[in-house]
Amino acid sequence: MVDEYFKRKVEAIEVKEKSISQLLAEMSRTAYQGRKLGEAVEVWEAMLKEKDLTIIMGFSGSMSTAGQWKIVNWLIENRFIDVLVSTGANVSEDIVDAMGFGYWQGSHMVNDEALLKADINRYYDVFGKESDYRKMEELMTDFLLTLRRDFTYSSMELLYLFGKWLSKKGIHSIAAVAAEKGVPIFCPAISDSAYGEAFLMAKNMGHPIVVDSVKEFDQFVGIGEKTKDIGVIYIGGGVPKDFTQLIAISVSPKTMDKGVPGREGFKRKSVQEYYYPHKYAIQITTDSPQWGGLSGCTLEEAVSWGKIHSEGKRAVCYCDATIALPLITHALNERVKTKRKAPDLSWLFSQVM
Amino acid sequence: MVDEYFKRKVEAIEVKEKSISQLLAEMSRTAYQGRKLGEAVEVWEAMLKEKDLTIIMGFSGSMSTAGQWKIVNWLIENRFIDVLVSTGANVSEDIVDAMGFGYWQGSHMVNDEALLKADINRYYDVFGKESDYRKMEELMTDFLLTLRRDFTYSSMELLYLFGKWLSKKGIHSIAAVAAEKGVPIFCPAISDSAYGEAFLMAKNMGHPIVVDSVKEFDQFVGIGEKTKDIGVIYIGGGVPKDFTQLIAISVSPKTMDKGVPGREGFKRKSVQEYYYPHKYAIQITTDSPQWGGLSGCTLEEAVSWGKIHSEGKRAVCYCDATIALPLITHALNERVKTKRKAPDLSWLFSQVM
Amino acid sequence: MVDEYFKRKVEAIEVKEKSISQLLAEMSRTAYQGRKLGEAVEVWEAMLKEKDLTIIMGFSGSMSTAGQWKIVNWLIENRFIDVLVSTGANVSEDIVDAMGFGYWQGSHMVNDEALLKADINRYYDVFGKESDYRKMEELMTDFLLTLRRDFTYSSMELLYLFGKWLSKKGIHSIAAVAAEKGVPIFCPAISDSAYGEAFLMAKNMGHPIVVDSVKEFDQFVGIGEKTKDIGVIYIGGGVPKDFTQLIAISVSPKTMDKGVPGREGFKRKSVQEYYYPHKYAIQITTDSPQWGGLSGCTLEEAVSWGKIHSEGKRAVCYCDATIALPLITHALNERVKTKRKAPDLSWLFSQVM
Amino acid sequence: MVDEYFKRKVEAIEVKEKSISQLLAEMSRTAYQGRKLGEAVEVWEAMLKEKDLTIIMGFSGSMSTAGQWKIVNWLIENRFIDVLVSTGANVSEDIVDAMGFGYWQGSHMVNDEALLKADINRYYDVFGKESDYRKMEELMTDFLLTLRRDFTYSSMELLYLFGKWLSKKGIHSIAAVAAEKGVPIFCPAISDSAYGEAFLMAKNMGHPIVVDSVKEFDQFVGIGEKTKDIGVIYIGGGVPKDFTQLIAISVSPKTMDKGVPGREGFKRKSVQEYYYPHKYAIQITTDSPQWGGLSGCTLEEAVSWGKIHSEGKRAVCYCDATIALPLITHALNERVKTKRKAPDLSWLFSQVM
Repeated sequence: MVDEYFKRKVEAIEVKEKSISQLLAEMSRTAYQGRKLGEAVEVWEAMLKEKDLTIIMGFSGSMSTAGQWKIVNWLIENRFIDVLVSTGANVSEDIVDAMGFGYWQGSHMVNDEALLKADINRYYDVFGKESDYRKMEELMTDFLLTLRRDFTYSSMELLYLFGKWLSKKGIHSIAAVAAEKGVPIFCPAISDSAYGEAFLMAKNMGHPIVVDSVKEFDQFVGIGEKTKDIGVIYIGGGVPKDFTQLIAISVSPKTMDKGVPGREGFKRKSVQEYYYPHKYAIQITTDSPQWGGLSGCTLEEAVSWGKIHSEGKRAVCYCDATIALPLITHALNERVKTKRKAPDLSWLFSQVM
Repeated sequence: MVDEYFKRKVEAIEVKEKSISQLLAEMSRTAYQGRKLGEAVEVWEAMLKEKDLTIIMGFSGSMSTAGQWKIVNWLIENRFIDVLVSTGANVSEDIVDAMGFGYWQGSHMVNDEALLKADINRYYDVFGKESDYRKMEELMTDFLLTLRRDFTYSSMELLYLFGKWLSKKGIHSIAAVAAEKGVPIFCPAISDSAYGEAFLMAKNMGHPIVVDSVKEFDQFVGIGEKTKDIGVIYIGGGVPKDFTQLIAISVSPKTMDKGVPGREGFKRKSVQEYYYPHKYAIQITTDSPQWGGLSGCTLEEAVSWGKIHSEGKRAVCYCDATIALPLITHALNERVKTKRKAPDLSWLFSQVM
Repeated sequence: MVDEYFKRKVEAIEVKEKSISQLLAEMSRTAYQGRKLGEAVEVWEAMLKEKDLTIIMGFSGSMSTAGQWKIVNWLIENRFIDVLVSTGANVSEDIVDAMGFGYWQGSHMVNDEALLKADINRYYDVFGKESDYRKMEELMTDFLLTLRRDFTYSSMELLYLFGKWLSKKGIHSIAAVAAEKGVPIFCPAISDSAYGEAFLMAKNMGHPIVVDSVKEFDQFVGIGEKTKDIGVIYIGGGVPKDFTQLIAISVSPKTMDKGVPGREGFKRKSVQEYYYPHKYAIQITTDSPQWGGLSGCTLEEAVSWGKIHSEGKRAVCYCDATIALPLITHALNERVKTKRKAPDLSWLFSQVM
Repeated sequence: MVDEYFKRKVEAIEVKEKSISQLLAEMSRTAYQGRKLGEAVEVWEAMLKEKDLTIIMGFSGSMSTAGQWKIVNWLIENRFIDVLVSTGANVSEDIVDAMGFGYWQGSHMVNDEALLKADINRYYDVFGKESDYRKMEELMTDFLLTLRRDFTYSSMELLYLFGKWLSKKGIHSIAAVAAEKGVPIFCPAISDSAYGEAFLMAKNMGHPIVVDSVKEFDQFVGIGEKTKDIGVIYIGGGVPKDFTQLIAISVSPKTMDKGVPGREGFKRKSVQEYYYPHKYAIQITTDSPQWGGLSGCTLEEAVSWGKIHSEGKRAVCYCDATIALPLITHALNERVKTKRKAPDLSWLFSQVM
């Protein structure tokens, strides 16, 4: 009985030359969030070795202004992720940088009224020029004017077309690279960003478009119905996390029997519906469980909902993503040398190809 | 020069019988977050005395399961808020309670697999029955089947119609009370909730509807164009906060001259556009600025964007909303005795009335 | 089996006139930290009804500058606490206010170099005058010069004598009120505060004294050996919390059989020693468990150490103490009308009386 | 004017093979806490290049159980720090591991009552055996019995003697390595740990000792009087941070003119005393400023007190130390190849050598 508590010793780290991957492996044998960071790498590594797994990344916050967007491109290019669920900010503010304008290392202790007068927008300790932001919005509007007015788009379809359009212009933003690689991007609150402002600009120019929240959700849930298992990676919480979790439980009665071979759902006792808990889950967050919100809640809470498998591999690391994401991805780059066979999701683009 | 630092003394609190309002007034003369909580009441009080002010509340998280939804009803009934921007969770999970099913006081230290087997969904230390949740989704689907298939809805229009429908059934949820009082509810990521699942159910029953993100944003921004000033209250961050902030800067050139008398915008130096910073702002959050995200960022950061007026009244209180919201509203109830003249926003419902 | 999960419903709060105590009672039927705040009042109330209970409060941070010190005086005067374990800051900075100098409501967004030039010390959003601080240190030094040079003091004895000395001067600081009421104050890191500087001043004036850490710990542990049960209240974490917890496990073999009637300890399996877990525990903290530290750890972690009884009443509320402490104490003031029979701890002062 | 805002661009990280040092250098050109982690390495590097600098590390929490204590040994051996100010936990719990007993990788989601029955003490997700802890306390008691009963020790002197004693026994704990290298360890609340329990055991065995808080503080402040400049590194907050800060302002009038050549203090306007602000400061913390406490407060707040030089190099990184400390030290190990000329502090041990 007691022996179960004494399986693996904590191993004190000794400082010497080593690789990033090796240091994270050593951290996985320590404690607290250092251990969790090391475990996050291991869970992601296990995902990449799994067959018939679709890996979805929920990507919150304003990480593109923080120098993290090329890491996402790398994840897409190597198909370390198959689907991206993002805030509007993360797949628009990267474009400012990809266009060549960029952001500046600023300070969070600054006179914000002076920044306003200097036409600078602040993202904590990052400065961006309002005029650059507007140029990005104008580019976005140029694209929107190429869209059909008699078609009901999902955010995913819109971002796929935008990505292809950007790619042709040589602007290698996240959306561009994702479109090239066939990785769909879902953006459930797309108007809550520069896209919203561009939608209004296009509308004011006589070119209103429709971006349907229902179609988006239907397409997203459809991914779940075509894969054996799902692994999720949450960089932050918010809508991208909550939305991604729904793929585990929003399977309609009609489609539940049409799953891929080997796909096993579980029947709820109280209702006539199936749930397909995620097999792997990683969460990097700076929120805490005690506030009761989704962004900080434990992955165990998701187990009660049937959203995560109780026996699945999982790791939560409470850490700023600007620390955790570079470390995890560099360790993966060192460790994973064989090319992964990623699922083909091109059917999602069929209506707009 | 030095005298500017010594304007108001910290006054140590003496324990004796007093009202909630009085204790919060005393806390406003202490320090740290206690002072901020007291100041939040004062800022809200000032908003209620202001003429030609539209008060928007961003409402995040899963607060309805936490016993807070009737407080929102009270805020709407007394028109202490004029517009609600909400997560899908907050305006769907309240319905479970309003239907008479309710939630249970649970624990966050529990075996989640056992909960799953007992068909219980956990919200930190709250338990809800999966079967009750499904009954709410079925009710929602019943409503969706009454909607037009040839109409493009915004989330606001959909929630207005849903509210009227619920009200007739005697289900006094937030949406119902808001519809009765003419308070619009915007839900920018509406599919990310029970609504998404109900959309799919209706679709599977041959009744697909369209919920347009562009129309929603256009309508929301329209509110800003018809009011002299705006005051905002953020309970949590996330999409509701970010979306609400956009109303300050997403004013199209075409409409900027059509504002109400006395409305003053400011011209950006670098671009040919106007911004209309919010005059009052309150934020209750458990996030922190140092993570760089929107949910925890200071209201000063919003000043740099032109989203909040540098000279406007504002207060940020870092505190769980289940503590701050009841206290602030009970203090307001004691202090504010005159009925406020609230703006008429019924024009927003014109297409669906 | 399932019924155990559905004992008490979450009750949504309705806004109407009510007392502080009543609102906190209603919050105890909601969720998240609001519920915990309500529960904290209930646990404290239960402590006050218990016979043969010694109530120890761990008091961290710099709360006296934040307008909280008179609340501690009230707790002592009413014997809602019997022992105080404090940082040096909390029982020195209150003296500045009790001397009539006070602190000012400042801002945390300020130029700290300008403050330095203006001789202002900042405590987040509180300003204090360096010259006032020095006057307090000089007063402290005057007192130290009255102490014996041939005696080994514990911090508790020193603070008792200081309290009596202050009381005679009409300076009603925490130490003064505690001395009047026979409530001992332990300050395990006393030099880490104005006391440290005063010790040096006295020494430079040819009057060195000795403050023995061992004697202090011995006296503190002695309290545990003379009471049937212990209840603890932690306002913040740090040394005051850790030190207080040790009273549960630092009982020497020699003394374990000399306990008061009814006192029951538990024998450790692996060692020949007893532990006496605390029966009640309240913790107000802004730290979080995931960082692995003592200040944010759960009370359950203390159960594993034998420091808190697994069946004892306990409540942890994650909230700034400047919010939680005034609310809890005002609710107690409304609820508790009968005088508590507090333990006599005067034997602790026998060597210095 | 505007150009001052646009000095250095944010550079998006590209994933490729690189060293730990290189990745941290790249992170220093991103944003949020990732940038801060990179800057922390740079500030420490600058400290190591500075002449006549005494580097003091404040070391809080329970980091030795978390696999971090050999990193501290490495810092001492390489004289990347000159003085350690520690909790009792950090310089006692390492001994359990150094004795060969160790700790186990556990879980924070566990039944603590079951742990208690299995005689396991939990430190968040680390398990330790109570019996091992007691063996460490017995070892400590054995040492205490070698001390003089007619001498007044400071915690620093006691830990120096203990380190030498351990070293001879081949137990290479932090105290042992520090004693070998002449690095003093101050432990201002030493009784608040296993030391406290060992003091009582020794006393019960007829061997009481005296550990004087005043002597400790006097010796600590003396370090400041003999060095030109001071650099500080805070791993966590609490007493170790607060105590370390006092070295900047606790300089007696008598000694202020006896400083080393080049040492410059600043005179307070309001009082006749000097302060010697720290020239370099690094803080790794998981606390936040808004709670008003010392552990989370900004280094700027310390500027107002004269504790940190307004023009000194400083970096605060909000991150779990189990992540930040291994990364920073491994980067330093890669970057710093020349041996530093460290200050000689052996005079501190003169009374006990």
